[in-house]
Amino acid sequence: MIRVGIVGGTGYTGVELVRLLAGHPELQLEVVTSRTEAGQSLVDFFPNLRGHTTLRYEAPDLARLRELDLVFFATPHGVAMDMAPGLVAAGVRVIDLGADFRLKDPASYEHWYGLAHSATDLLAEASYGLPELFREEIRGSRLVANPGCYPTAVILGLQPLLQAGLLHLDSLIADCKSGVSGAGRTARLGLILAETSDNVQAYGVSGHRHRPEIEAVLGRSCGRDLELQFSPHLMPMIRGIHATLYGRLNRSLSDAQLQEIYAQRYAHEPFVDVLPWGSHPATRSVRGANVCRIAVHQPRPGQVVVLSVIDNLVKGAAGQALQNLNLLFGFPETLGLEQIALLP
Amino acid sequence: MIRVGIVGGTGYTGVELVRLLAGHPELQLEVVTSRTEAGQSLVDFFPNLRGHTTLRYEAPDLARLRELDLVFFATPHGVAMDMAPGLVAAGVRVIDLGADFRLKDPASYEHWYGLAHSATDLLAEASYGLPELFREEIRGSRLVANPGCYPTAVILGLQPLLQAGLLHLDSLIADCKSGVSGAGRTARLGLILAETSDNVQAYGVSGHRHRPEIEAVLGRSCGRDLELQFSPHLMPMIRGIHATLYGRLNRSLSDAQLQEIYAQRYAHEPFVDVLPWGSHPATRSVRGANVCRIAVHQPRPGQVVVLSVIDNLVKGAAGQALQNLNLLFGFPETLGLEQIALLP
Amino acid sequence: MIRVGIVGGTGYTGVELVRLLAGHPELQLEVVTSRTEAGQSLVDFFPNLRGHTTLRYEAPDLARLRELDLVFFATPHGVAMDMAPGLVAAGVRVIDLGADFRLKDPASYEHWYGLAHSATDLLAEASYGLPELFREEIRGSRLVANPGCYPTAVILGLQPLLQAGLLHLDSLIADCKSGVSGAGRTARLGLILAETSDNVQAYGVSGHRHRPEIEAVLGRSCGRDLELQFSPHLMPMIRGIHATLYGRLNRSLSDAQLQEIYAQRYAHEPFVDVLPWGSHPATRSVRGANVCRIAVHQPRPGQVVVLSVIDNLVKGAAGQALQNLNLLFGFPETLGLEQIALLP
Amino acid sequence: MIRVGIVGGTGYTGVELVRLLAGHPELQLEVVTSRTEAGQSLVDFFPNLRGHTTLRYEAPDLARLRELDLVFFATPHGVAMDMAPGLVAAGVRVIDLGADFRLKDPASYEHWYGLAHSATDLLAEASYGLPELFREEIRGSRLVANPGCYPTAVILGLQPLLQAGLLHLDSLIADCKSGVSGAGRTARLGLILAETSDNVQAYGVSGHRHRPEIEAVLGRSCGRDLELQFSPHLMPMIRGIHATLYGRLNRSLSDAQLQEIYAQRYAHEPFVDVLPWGSHPATRSVRGANVCRIAVHQPRPGQVVVLSVIDNLVKGAAGQALQNLNLLFGFPETLGLEQIALLP
Repeated sequence: MIRVGIVGGTGYTGVELVRLLAGHPELQLEVVTSRTEAGQSLVDFFPNLRGHTTLRYEAPDLARLRELDLVFFATPHGVAMDMAPGLVAAGVRVIDLGADFRLKDPASYEHWYGLAHSATDLLAEASYGLPELFREEIRGSRLVANPGCYPTAVILGLQPLLQAGLLHLDSLIADCKSGVSGAGRTARLGLILAETSDNVQAYGVSGHRHRPEIEAVLGRSCGRDLELQFSPHLMPMIRGIHATLYGRLNRSLSDAQLQEIYAQRYAHEPFVDVLPWGSHPATRSVRGANVCRIAVHQPRPGQVVVLSVIDNLVKGAAGQALQNLNLLFGFPETLGLEQIALLP
Repeated sequence: MIRVGIVGGTGYTGVELVRLLAGHPELQLEVVTSRTEAGQSLVDFFPNLRGHTTLRYEAPDLARLRELDLVFFATPHGVAMDMAPGLVAAGVRVIDLGADFRLKDPASYEHWYGLAHSATDLLAEASYGLPELFREEIRGSRLVANPGCYPTAVILGLQPLLQAGLLHLDSLIADCKSGVSGAGRTARLGLILAETSDNVQAYGVSGHRHRPEIEAVLGRSCGRDLELQFSPHLMPMIRGIHATLYGRLNRSLSDAQLQEIYAQRYAHEPFVDVLPWGSHPATRSVRGANVCRIAVHQPRPGQVVVLSVIDNLVKGAAGQALQNLNLLFGFPETLGLEQIALLP
Repeated sequence: MIRVGIVGGTGYTGVELVRLLAGHPELQLEVVTSRTEAGQSLVDFFPNLRGHTTLRYEAPDLARLRELDLVFFATPHGVAMDMAPGLVAAGVRVIDLGADFRLKDPASYEHWYGLAHSATDLLAEASYGLPELFREEIRGSRLVANPGCYPTAVILGLQPLLQAGLLHLDSLIADCKSGVSGAGRTARLGLILAETSDNVQAYGVSGHRHRPEIEAVLGRSCGRDLELQFSPHLMPMIRGIHATLYGRLNRSLSDAQLQEIYAQRYAHEPFVDVLPWGSHPATRSVRGANVCRIAVHQPRPGQVVVLSVIDNLVKGAAGQALQNLNLLFGFPETLGLEQIALLP
Repeated sequence: MIRVGIVGGTGYTGVELVRLLAGHPELQLEVVTSRTEAGQSLVDFFPNLRGHTTLRYEAPDLARLRELDLVFFATPHGVAMDMAPGLVAAGVRVIDLGADFRLKDPASYEHWYGLAHSATDLLAEASYGLPELFREEIRGSRLVANPGCYPTAVILGLQPLLQAGLLHLDSLIADCKSGVSGAGRTARLGLILAETSDNVQAYGVSGHRHRPEIEAVLGRSCGRDLELQFSPHLMPMIRGIHATLYGRLNRSLSDAQLQEIYAQRYAHEPFVDVLPWGSHPATRSVRGANVCRIAVHQPRPGQVVVLSVIDNLVKGAAGQALQNLNLLFGFPETLGLEQIALLP
């Protein structure tokens, strides 16, 4: 049995990890930490876990974490870069579900997150945990930077065309719609139901931390710098991201050719599902499941619209982290991740 | 492997059965029928199933169903009582998730469902599929009447006190709140989001088909006829039933004694979770899980309020049906039913 | 023109008052106070007000408030009892939308609100601002205690039968469902959409501040002490209260007689709408409107179920306050209050 | 008093018209028709209207309608083009809230709506009822084609830049999010809450009837043909449209210059509210109000993102129709339309 721990277990990513780990036959969850809630039972925070765990939060303790095989960080930025070096040095694998190791450029990190990066060596060697693009790098890495939720949906949606060099690079747009769980388990006025229900509102249209992450990863895919307009919107729902992606072809392609590019690109990917041409995927079709569903449209010649949906807490966070764990330890990539989405 | 089929697989109970059966290691789902959709793929109706089944709907065919070990009926009332006798006679076990075998009294059935009962012999022998009350009867039965969703929540909430003879029988009230999936996958004006969202409304306050079912089963528990006021309400949510149950004690009991009655009654039940005294269970704590969570209150001496929550599609329908199947075939009762509720 | 002010204008009750006052032809809103937001524009907090007001929050200042004809308090408990005496003494009428003057008994106030009452003289003379019960008292009063939202729905629903002495007093139950705006505009974890959407949960079943308020007012109606079980539930919606009220008749009444009692009781009330016998009122039918809609059921002889719905922010707060203002100043009671509910 | 009627009064546009007309001091609503519900009371369909109207639906009767001063059509396409000519000939003004007179080109109408146009003369003379663009034409017209809901939000958002010739015409995108009331009061499976709640899904990405309407009207504004990608999405909310509009500047403009273009363009428009630079308007800020709120962003030089929100049933339908009526009869344009949005 692989012995794992979670640093920062009071948020939605944390509880979702606990839920998924409980269904994995080769893992033993031994430690869940919380600075503020040490001593409390997990089930008092997350009643869905009643009957499934008897763990209590512990104060984070490096000595205790060093005994484990792998540690997940489900923490705000700034925590993992402080603690991860000590773990990695001790031979513990680390998967960071936060933002500390996603941006390769320390200057960009400092610009977008307002902190100087304190572990630049580890940053340099970290793999980017999107298996569909970086499977081999992940397998061999000591530290995996689990992607952001928006980047997962956007990158999987655009990468096949960018990799093939088929898109103009000056007109990429990602118009994204997210459920509120993406904002975390936080007591913020702007998140209460009376403010967010029966409402749609954009935010961060002029700049959002996920934009440089998307641009850097997609840029690597096509070998050129690119700019993408990223517009996130808050939806009155709990889970789910719907990315509506716009690009312009730089050569003529038939609808069938476009569909074939996606079908082939993801033919052997267990967690990317390319829908029939002209479909409109629903976020509820992935609720609770580790899958990205994608559909492609060409409303007018040269104008491509890709629709890409994920559950932000699963393929956009905890599920993807478990997929990365499976790669790190040589388990079948789908182990513990075959839940069917909850619909309705 | 047990070979199973579903008659009526286009509704929410049907798709939920498919989801749960896929996670059960001893079952093989071979047939899903639909009169109107024969030939269509299940995944075209329920995109969450993509990648998990290749089945297509078949027209219902008794000869084909007779080859199976067990058939679930997830049909409107009237269908199962026509088809079940031919299956039972052929040695096929039947679990009816519809209403045909819930009311033992054919006259009551005819009154509430508007049809004469066409299989009264089978009605007489059918077990009532609430394992927490009728486990042994279920094990030995050929046909199981799976309880209604409201009755499951209400009966589990009130039975401990009624069985112990502790309640006045003239003042029982069940004020119930249900998500709209309880009304089925039906194109009805009263169910569209623009009519049901941001709204609460009662229905059937003067009489509802689940009332006689509750009264009959609870009456059996205490050995006396009883009357219960049942008031269902439609909530702007998808899944979940919250039953708020009111009774008056016929003798004085301390809070600790009350709690102990529930704790002992359900101490060995894997799917009933008695919360600490004074709790308020949330329907989301059972979303997608086969569990009933119960909390007890005594706001003033003698006034008992029991709060009981289930997922109407799981413990209130498909999950309970699978629990009954486990009993019928001697599997561990929890096999395939240990999913953790999806929260948030 | 009557000159009015609002103390505490950053909550939902405050903004709803501003909305309603803007449509009243005889009022001039001159001051809205906020301790924390003084200097800020109202429209920066409530963008729906853009184009309708240029007011900025002011720090509360007694001298400034004393120049007005009437001051509304839309504040947490404890504020109004400190400031109101100085206003009333200066001849300013006061309508308190908070809780300070609702419970006539200072000991009860202290018990439920945890503060000694500091204005017991004013408490003694305050009228209870439910015009349908206390119209004449309100007209002549200097200070009006605007009822709580739950009490408004419950009292209007039960009072006709209690006043007529037709109910047993030992079995009254109010099972109430409320939208989350009733909990105020507050950054609380338990109110964020990811916690409250797709969910139903009770709270305060063992005791809630609105219970003594309801019991006292209804007790006055029937001239006897009474006990009522009050069970509030949080619903995944923004506005609306649905009270499901249970009582047992102490003599036999036909359905027609019951209906007639309600029809006559409210025949001349502009803001209470008695629906046809056996109806099920929807909270959305009162969204944004100053009306209480009521329907009566007698599912079995002697068992009465009354359904009563209001918009908690209008008839349950700001609308009722304006109705009281109309009484205080001799305007037609419906002036500025004839908005039609927003449906869908 | 102007005497008005509504043909097709059982949908959401119809009831919203009734709500708004009730608050207009110069109008008398005399007839509301329904083929299927003739004889029924309006209040039995829309309980929010109880106490505000005693009208019953009548079968549509040209003779009866010819007595009126103005008739609104709130009907599916195909109805108004049959009946309007007879009314216009009799001197009755017509405002069609349906689609029959929106597309000037009969061939385009036939292509998108599947019907040959039967009133091409009237089509030619009809004004397009977007007062902010066509105020003078509307004033003098006999028949007004009230714009679609999406077109209203999109056209008001893009027109200032197109009119000024500042945008490239080959990269316009309108990514739109709509509440479900836009789909009408219809019993459709795809609209029930269990299918639409906690979900986001696009539809009609490859082609939607509102695209040619938008392209034609905007094309007129800039004097050139243009193509726009229009992607509608269904949101889990009742009311509201959020249009996220993307364009590329064809010359360099500072943020201040961009803002100034919008501020000046709409400086004298009572129902268009340009927010401060960089804002993110919320659909709830216009719920129930006849206003379009717009904010402008330039995330990178040359990339413009315009956010435009309306209530689809008010500024996107019934409110705009009343605004057009005010123009037709010389009333102040804001008469009866100054409701404040309902927030929360």
